[in-house]
Amino acid sequence: MKLFDNRPIGIFDSGLGGLTVAAALRRKLPGEAVVYLGDTARVPYGDKSVDSIIHFAHQDVEFMLSCGVKIVVAACNTVSAVALNSLKHDYPDKTILGVIDSGVRAVIDSGAESIAVIGTRATINSDAYRRGIHAANCAIKVESIACPLLVPLAEEGITAPGILTAVFDIYLSKLRKNPPDALLLGCTHYPLFAEALNSYFAGKVKIIDSAGACAKYTAEFLETNKIAAQPDNSPGFGCFVTDMPSEFQCHARRFLGGQLPDRVEKISFA
Amino acid sequence: MKLFDNRPIGIFDSGLGGLTVAAALRRKLPGEAVVYLGDTARVPYGDKSVDSIIHFAHQDVEFMLSCGVKIVVAACNTVSAVALNSLKHDYPDKTILGVIDSGVRAVIDSGAESIAVIGTRATINSDAYRRGIHAANCAIKVESIACPLLVPLAEEGITAPGILTAVFDIYLSKLRKNPPDALLLGCTHYPLFAEALNSYFAGKVKIIDSAGACAKYTAEFLETNKIAAQPDNSPGFGCFVTDMPSEFQCHARRFLGGQLPDRVEKISFA
Repeated sequence: MKLFDNRPIGIFDSGLGGLTVAAALRRKLPGEAVVYLGDTARVPYGDKSVDSIIHFAHQDVEFMLSCGVKIVVAACNTVSAVALNSLKHDYPDKTILGVIDSGVRAVIDSGAESIAVIGTRATINSDAYRRGIHAANCAIKVESIACPLLVPLAEEGITAPGILTAVFDIYLSKLRKNPPDALLLGCTHYPLFAEALNSYFAGKVKIIDSAGACAKYTAEFLETNKIAAQPDNSPGFGCFVTDMPSEFQCHARRFLGGQLPDRVEKISFA
Repeated sequence: MKLFDNRPIGIFDSGLGGLTVAAALRRKLPGEAVVYLGDTARVPYGDKSVDSIIHFAHQDVEFMLSCGVKIVVAACNTVSAVALNSLKHDYPDKTILGVIDSGVRAVIDSGAESIAVIGTRATINSDAYRRGIHAANCAIKVESIACPLLVPLAEEGITAPGILTAVFDIYLSKLRKNPPDALLLGCTHYPLFAEALNSYFAGKVKIIDSAGACAKYTAEFLETNKIAAQPDNSPGFGCFVTDMPSEFQCHARRFLGGQLPDRVEKISFA
């Protein structure tokens, strides 16, 4: 007998960026209900201290669990990079998946021999992607570059090539001269720039998207552990934010395409 | 007999930007002790809701008062724009000055007949500068423009003309074609771009800096109310942050020039 679990998947992020993971997951697993939490009162996490990020992440996970989710996905690269071990330690009987592990697996599966990882300052400083990749294959050449301006650009929806190229030049001009096999988008906001980055590198660099990878490996996890939803499940999509629910609705369109949430509610941690 | 008050001036901001006010104040009033609070765990305020900003500002003021300051300066334009009335209402026996009032006075004193105000989204949405200017002189033409990318650029210390011009073009290209008499920098981060903005407008627009204006009017307030420090006072300069004290020390140099704080301590609100 095939087993099913119709409880929702919990996805949380510091703000809107994790919606790229929610969107990828809902495309990949249309039968799964999703509860999303964006900590928009304290966004961004990427420039904050490890202690603060761990504290925020614990509050986020507590809320997710209170929603009765079957697994929690830390869609925030910053959280996955610096707080996942602490979360796994403190919730030993819960499943908490992080985008870093998925990104690492996608890099290994791609067969790239040299890779550049881009992300927030906290993600890059944590060295989590390089450590993960080298734990699997220490022959892969890994270069890690923090690109802190890309998150505000994505949050503002700036896509004008002039400004994107000027910002890419700040962080990536060296890489452009000597391109790696692949570029890992180590921040959930960055898929919005996938096309622009592809143009910037003249199509010579394979772009690996950690949001897409996360959806793929979450699907595998549900299947392997026999906790996928029933195929005829009619799944809800609820969103919670810690600030500005109406602005969330507006901006979510950019991240989600047509798959808007059923409802957006405000919650508070302080 | 001349009266003096050697207690410190309290200055608070969402993050580092208010240090431009602290720097201007210490240049203007070298005998005054200063206690600075930057809420770096929740920076930026400018894209958050009015309710959250008021809540954060109350916690900031409570901390300032616990430091025994003689007046509190809300160096954050966002707080001054949306939370100052609430703060004045809840602390009727305390003096809380905001940068908006100073900016408005500087505009009036400048004699400009047309003015553009730039600031964060929350500051501009509040319409506080336009209302303040029109309360004093409703003949002044006021245009208000939110420039949300300028704060992250300042926090990152980006000054390359290529990228600044590309970002200015997003928000200010119309203004450049039809320049006003003056441009009010309605955000404490923006003085870092004063020179670049002056070049952008080919020197045709007078740049009014709300940080400098705030220092000037604070000095007048202390003098008028006979609460200035003794001339031979040897003033301390203490800084508190809610996150990342060591990074604060690094970045503070950019905002403060040579006048670094005696100490930086971390405090917590949550």
